[in-house]
Amino acid sequence: MTATTTTVFEQLESDVRSYSRMWPTVFDTAKGAWLRDENGKEYLDFFAGAGALNYGHNNPVLKRALIDYIVGNGITHGLDMATVAKRRLLETFRDRILGPRNLTYKVQFPGPTGTNAVEAALKLARKVTGRQSIISFTNAFHGMTLGSLSVTGNSMKRAGAGIPLVHATPMPFDNYFDGGTADFQWFARALDDSGSGINRPAAVIVETVQGEGGVNVARPEWLRALADLCARREILLIVDDVQMGCGRTGPFFSFEVAGIEPDIVTLSKSIGGYGLPLALTLFKPEFDIWAPGEHNGTFRGNNPAFVTAQVALEHYWSDDRLETSTLELGDRIHTRFVGLTEQFDGLSTRGRGLVQGLAFADASQAGKVSQIAYDNGLLVETSGPSDQVVKLLPPLTIADDELELGLGILADAVASVCRAKDAPV
Amino acid sequence: MTATTTTVFEQLESDVRSYSRMWPTVFDTAKGAWLRDENGKEYLDFFAGAGALNYGHNNPVLKRALIDYIVGNGITHGLDMATVAKRRLLETFRDRILGPRNLTYKVQFPGPTGTNAVEAALKLARKVTGRQSIISFTNAFHGMTLGSLSVTGNSMKRAGAGIPLVHATPMPFDNYFDGGTADFQWFARALDDSGSGINRPAAVIVETVQGEGGVNVARPEWLRALADLCARREILLIVDDVQMGCGRTGPFFSFEVAGIEPDIVTLSKSIGGYGLPLALTLFKPEFDIWAPGEHNGTFRGNNPAFVTAQVALEHYWSDDRLETSTLELGDRIHTRFVGLTEQFDGLSTRGRGLVQGLAFADASQAGKVSQIAYDNGLLVETSGPSDQVVKLLPPLTIADDELELGLGILADAVASVCRAKDAPV
Amino acid sequence: MTATTTTVFEQLESDVRSYSRMWPTVFDTAKGAWLRDENGKEYLDFFAGAGALNYGHNNPVLKRALIDYIVGNGITHGLDMATVAKRRLLETFRDRILGPRNLTYKVQFPGPTGTNAVEAALKLARKVTGRQSIISFTNAFHGMTLGSLSVTGNSMKRAGAGIPLVHATPMPFDNYFDGGTADFQWFARALDDSGSGINRPAAVIVETVQGEGGVNVARPEWLRALADLCARREILLIVDDVQMGCGRTGPFFSFEVAGIEPDIVTLSKSIGGYGLPLALTLFKPEFDIWAPGEHNGTFRGNNPAFVTAQVALEHYWSDDRLETSTLELGDRIHTRFVGLTEQFDGLSTRGRGLVQGLAFADASQAGKVSQIAYDNGLLVETSGPSDQVVKLLPPLTIADDELELGLGILADAVASVCRAKDAPV
Amino acid sequence: MTATTTTVFEQLESDVRSYSRMWPTVFDTAKGAWLRDENGKEYLDFFAGAGALNYGHNNPVLKRALIDYIVGNGITHGLDMATVAKRRLLETFRDRILGPRNLTYKVQFPGPTGTNAVEAALKLARKVTGRQSIISFTNAFHGMTLGSLSVTGNSMKRAGAGIPLVHATPMPFDNYFDGGTADFQWFARALDDSGSGINRPAAVIVETVQGEGGVNVARPEWLRALADLCARREILLIVDDVQMGCGRTGPFFSFEVAGIEPDIVTLSKSIGGYGLPLALTLFKPEFDIWAPGEHNGTFRGNNPAFVTAQVALEHYWSDDRLETSTLELGDRIHTRFVGLTEQFDGLSTRGRGLVQGLAFADASQAGKVSQIAYDNGLLVETSGPSDQVVKLLPPLTIADDELELGLGILADAVASVCRAKDAPV
Repeated sequence: MTATTTTVFEQLESDVRSYSRMWPTVFDTAKGAWLRDENGKEYLDFFAGAGALNYGHNNPVLKRALIDYIVGNGITHGLDMATVAKRRLLETFRDRILGPRNLTYKVQFPGPTGTNAVEAALKLARKVTGRQSIISFTNAFHGMTLGSLSVTGNSMKRAGAGIPLVHATPMPFDNYFDGGTADFQWFARALDDSGSGINRPAAVIVETVQGEGGVNVARPEWLRALADLCARREILLIVDDVQMGCGRTGPFFSFEVAGIEPDIVTLSKSIGGYGLPLALTLFKPEFDIWAPGEHNGTFRGNNPAFVTAQVALEHYWSDDRLETSTLELGDRIHTRFVGLTEQFDGLSTRGRGLVQGLAFADASQAGKVSQIAYDNGLLVETSGPSDQVVKLLPPLTIADDELELGLGILADAVASVCRAKDAPV
Repeated sequence: MTATTTTVFEQLESDVRSYSRMWPTVFDTAKGAWLRDENGKEYLDFFAGAGALNYGHNNPVLKRALIDYIVGNGITHGLDMATVAKRRLLETFRDRILGPRNLTYKVQFPGPTGTNAVEAALKLARKVTGRQSIISFTNAFHGMTLGSLSVTGNSMKRAGAGIPLVHATPMPFDNYFDGGTADFQWFARALDDSGSGINRPAAVIVETVQGEGGVNVARPEWLRALADLCARREILLIVDDVQMGCGRTGPFFSFEVAGIEPDIVTLSKSIGGYGLPLALTLFKPEFDIWAPGEHNGTFRGNNPAFVTAQVALEHYWSDDRLETSTLELGDRIHTRFVGLTEQFDGLSTRGRGLVQGLAFADASQAGKVSQIAYDNGLLVETSGPSDQVVKLLPPLTIADDELELGLGILADAVASVCRAKDAPV
Repeated sequence: MTATTTTVFEQLESDVRSYSRMWPTVFDTAKGAWLRDENGKEYLDFFAGAGALNYGHNNPVLKRALIDYIVGNGITHGLDMATVAKRRLLETFRDRILGPRNLTYKVQFPGPTGTNAVEAALKLARKVTGRQSIISFTNAFHGMTLGSLSVTGNSMKRAGAGIPLVHATPMPFDNYFDGGTADFQWFARALDDSGSGINRPAAVIVETVQGEGGVNVARPEWLRALADLCARREILLIVDDVQMGCGRTGPFFSFEVAGIEPDIVTLSKSIGGYGLPLALTLFKPEFDIWAPGEHNGTFRGNNPAFVTAQVALEHYWSDDRLETSTLELGDRIHTRFVGLTEQFDGLSTRGRGLVQGLAFADASQAGKVSQIAYDNGLLVETSGPSDQVVKLLPPLTIADDELELGLGILADAVASVCRAKDAPV
Repeated sequence: MTATTTTVFEQLESDVRSYSRMWPTVFDTAKGAWLRDENGKEYLDFFAGAGALNYGHNNPVLKRALIDYIVGNGITHGLDMATVAKRRLLETFRDRILGPRNLTYKVQFPGPTGTNAVEAALKLARKVTGRQSIISFTNAFHGMTLGSLSVTGNSMKRAGAGIPLVHATPMPFDNYFDGGTADFQWFARALDDSGSGINRPAAVIVETVQGEGGVNVARPEWLRALADLCARREILLIVDDVQMGCGRTGPFFSFEVAGIEPDIVTLSKSIGGYGLPLALTLFKPEFDIWAPGEHNGTFRGNNPAFVTAQVALEHYWSDDRLETSTLELGDRIHTRFVGLTEQFDGLSTRGRGLVQGLAFADASQAGKVSQIAYDNGLLVETSGPSDQVVKLLPPLTIADDELELGLGILADAVASVCRAKDAPV
């Protein structure tokens, strides 16, 4: 990587770019769990498009269907017109996802990105309840448009709004006080107390595992208590499954582990399967009070993504093999991470399925580990408010030996940065 | 089209869908200016994905490049990593678009939809100026996420927000009072008067031609006066060129006709060329004060769209043929529309390049004409606050005979709905 | 006036103080139209507590009743308890004010200042309509608390809020464009156009004469058109009569001249009669949907002010003598002002009843005139966005010779500042 | 009390009235701790104008000065002009209050009600810090204008706003979780965590004892911790001492018990001494960044209240006798209340100085006790979110036998409503 090759990015692209700074090369092609840069160097990918590539890069099953569709002049851009590709997707989503889980959600195509899905969810919750306020959680991440940003925790990103972000109140996420405080002590009490000053919320929006927030995992019993709280107060429960849905934590929906049924669910990232933009907002049929066209968007009918989404659902979700494998691989990472925490000072681990985090008491070490891993051919990101957590999001389809290879690179990086517990003082 | 075939849409898809109601068939394939439904019926497309398909459906030049890229395992999903495909796009955008027009904009990839581009523009304008308020215009349309919605005029769509939309004040668009009032009488006076109660705005956001608003065309002198007003008051001028950019009105940027240089420009819809989701926010380099990652989005690096965007720019914007042809075809439509207005009562016409509107004094006639056109194989949409304008957005690449065919269907529809001027009373 | 005497003000009182800068003496006693400072110098008062002293300082009729009440240990502080003093006031207000004008308003005691009355009016209008937005007018002044400030025009005062003031949209006041534009061209059109982007308002709030705004006088026909517009759109009309009510423009309510009946009316300043804090919010009985205690305030039952208010109504509003006299005195000032405009360059005049303004094309002259007047024993204030208008608000009870005396001082000041029309160049 | 006598209140006064419903008689005169209705029935007052009458009704010392001032034609209405009466007040406030406590506050006269003082405080805090958000506390009460209402807890009163109340976030008041949770666990953590989603606040506003909120007493150590937290985070601390200041809890300022020095302090209610409207906003001199006239108000110069305020300070605050007596009387009430809690089921007590609360586990009993007390000639109010607390606010100047008399009536009422602990089941 020389300065010359990045010139046009530095000259022309906005300073807002970030990954290109962390991984300063020019990528060219990709396949499965691997990216290759223009100099031919290969990188193992434990990042997977921030969770948008659960089935790996350029998955051959989806690729075949995509090429066939394009070659056959299938509709590319369809707004919300009925198309053959959309029908297939809806039918498959019904038959492979909703039906087997006894879910009756209506499906909205709100525009092809996660933040579109979240904005639609918030709008609908407000419209249904006639209330304005939303409860979000500490260290939540829901998107960069104004509605989604208002329920996002990160202060740097919030400052980007340029206007006060209001109509949302954060509450402590599960285990925010390290177990010392009863669940929902503040939230439940504030709702009960007519003098609390909390505006009665339209909805609660929650991630079951906060990826950007530092791989914070909500316990199933916490999620159930939250769902109960919402139900008793007639507050809608929105699960933002943009990153944790589509099997990332094992089951298709990340909330299945808790046995709850949210009122509204958002999906994006891996729902398109191939990394093409797509998003869904799901909601219980009694909440489908949208007027025709009341929410729209030019690219809500990204039909090539409908095709790859349909094939992905058909191929990976007709049985429970992917779910089982995801949990097994997750356990393997967890075991390795536990080993590291036993071996080195200042480490801890958390995760569910194939989102696994290694947290460093000294946040700067997380960045160093990530950088050393990059130098050794492994892409792995940090997250959390201080970027103190190395977050693993490998493709769910990663092979055993690829996972081992990556974990080895990571372990070496940790060893070169952290102090071993048995090290002489 | 039978009821059976739409079942899954009615059962499963949200009631928010709209085009599928107006055009109640199931589309399957498309090529150039034509769509075909699953029963084999063909429709001539004077709608072009609401302006997202300026180069027609499945344009063969772009299609070839897209398939090659996918076959070759080019990066599909890249966040804001540097990629070969992005570099080619940036270089071509610089060499074919910015350079020849003496523009020095920085380029942000804000997420792949128009509303992402608008949200980024509004955030940046607020960050740059430290002010919150935005001036929008009557009958503006900028998108459905909360920031964009706040500068959108349509009351039905605004009501979908579920919270009061504030921080924006509408002003009358050009010719709002049918020429009877001096330009900016109210806006300029309100800015000058320290007692006006108008919060000093961060920016003005404007479409040069309001497509959704009813094909309202701002005169070049009005745009120049607006740019002057903004410059004198140190208010940023944002041109939302999502629908009117990429040659829709003739030149690549719709504001070129006025000789102005906006501070911020948004592009989406046809910038990807092939109907794939893509959006850009452009701004003068001195305003590139984003912190890395301060605005982001999962699909901001939709590399297949980079590929088709690059080829489209290279192929269609290396000379002025497309611009010339667009203006010629626009003139031809205009001439035909003038003929209709002379022949029938209650019609008027407006437009620029290949966005042309036929306005009906009796709004219900516009809907009838659109419906009859559909029955006769022509897709054409209505727009405006009362849906009183039949709006033509054919592909810029439409062939002469296709244009004639469509105009003929439209003229017949008008004739069957409207009263001829020489008709006996 | 020496520096020593003001020491404690400069040391201890906030820099927010303003009148004490313009009139840098220490006032001691007052009677009728006269104030006396601690050095014994007397000042003729054409300012009357910014309209709070329509019956003059320490009016002897009211003073007698006030002293009797205090001596007799009448309730001083009563919250919203029923008291004998409040009953007398309500009965007199009904019999002398509401009844003769065929008005059926309910009376709220919202707290003893104008801004309390305005806040209650805005809250009620929003509660009644379920809408949030309020239409205000250019150069309006309604108060300094957050709700009232949001409908106030002055940019310096608005900036004091420290948060964006939203939920209100200003419209041009009568004659804002010097007669060149039809009334309500923009407002009425924006309401009719479902695409205008104007949030449908709960209410319009208007002063019939804008005192702080520069003695801008709304024509009766404009007020009628405004009332019609509101009625047709089911928007509540609030007349803020805090400064112009209680006879300032002649009739008790300033809107009587237009023959309209606002939905909500605010009164304060002179309603207490003696300069004691008091305010009323009046509204049509069908809008009295307050829950008990939903709006309250510690000093809403300022009973000494009830006493003086009652006596003032009884004494001054049992016949039409005060109204007649006010109009006559107003005419006299107007005639004198017309004379000045004929004699000197750059002057114009406007007013109604005993609020009369002399506007200076060169705003700095207004300040000089006011300062010279002060030096010569006359208190007179400037107003308007550039402080370009010398505003006269003498007590309605001022004697003829006092009025002449003051007008003489003022004319001399004008003569010493302005260029006579027949002056040699 | 017959229906006839209340007719005009029911006919003409808004339904918003509340005390007149609880105490359905027509009051006429008052003296010290006693009110008398028009039928000659006397009521002992343990309510004292909701804390506005700390020196009793029509206190003879103040009354003498007030009458002398009125008789002598002292300035009644003075805006913010310098007056002799204001100078005396400022000097006395400096010499008797600020100086002895080593406080250097500047004094603003923001308008004569508590909510004016709070609005000025919030505006100033936002202006000083450039931030918008305010932290308030559960069950806080700060006033009914829009800014004050946004930091008030009561949901019924908040609903009266008619717009979403934003820019404020409530936090748990001291002991909100009955001692089970460390102080500021949530608040401090949310400030530290850059991902918490809490907008960084301009200020915290707190009452040291929440009167309306149910006589919730903040411990001195909690107040100190709060002050420390604010200081470390450069957040301004506003103590709203409208009800608890002027000696209600013993010392002049209620925060003296904690040894803290707030950045901003609001005073109203008893600061005028005689029940006349007056309010002050105090702030450290470095925060006096107001522009002249940036905040104003017609009745901010209520000079008769300056006179009574000055005499009250001079008479009652030149030594520590009132403070000592207040604490002694408070102890006496507390002892009696403890006796009641021992005797009856479901009672608890809390308070400081002469604000004392008797809380009922069964909220309906509090209302019954208050009603029985009224029937027996004692005025006592309930407070708290469920009106579950009988709140005692007798005049600080109440005589021993008056206190005993009232406590006796109250004890009898309790005995007639509550179940004795030794009662047979």
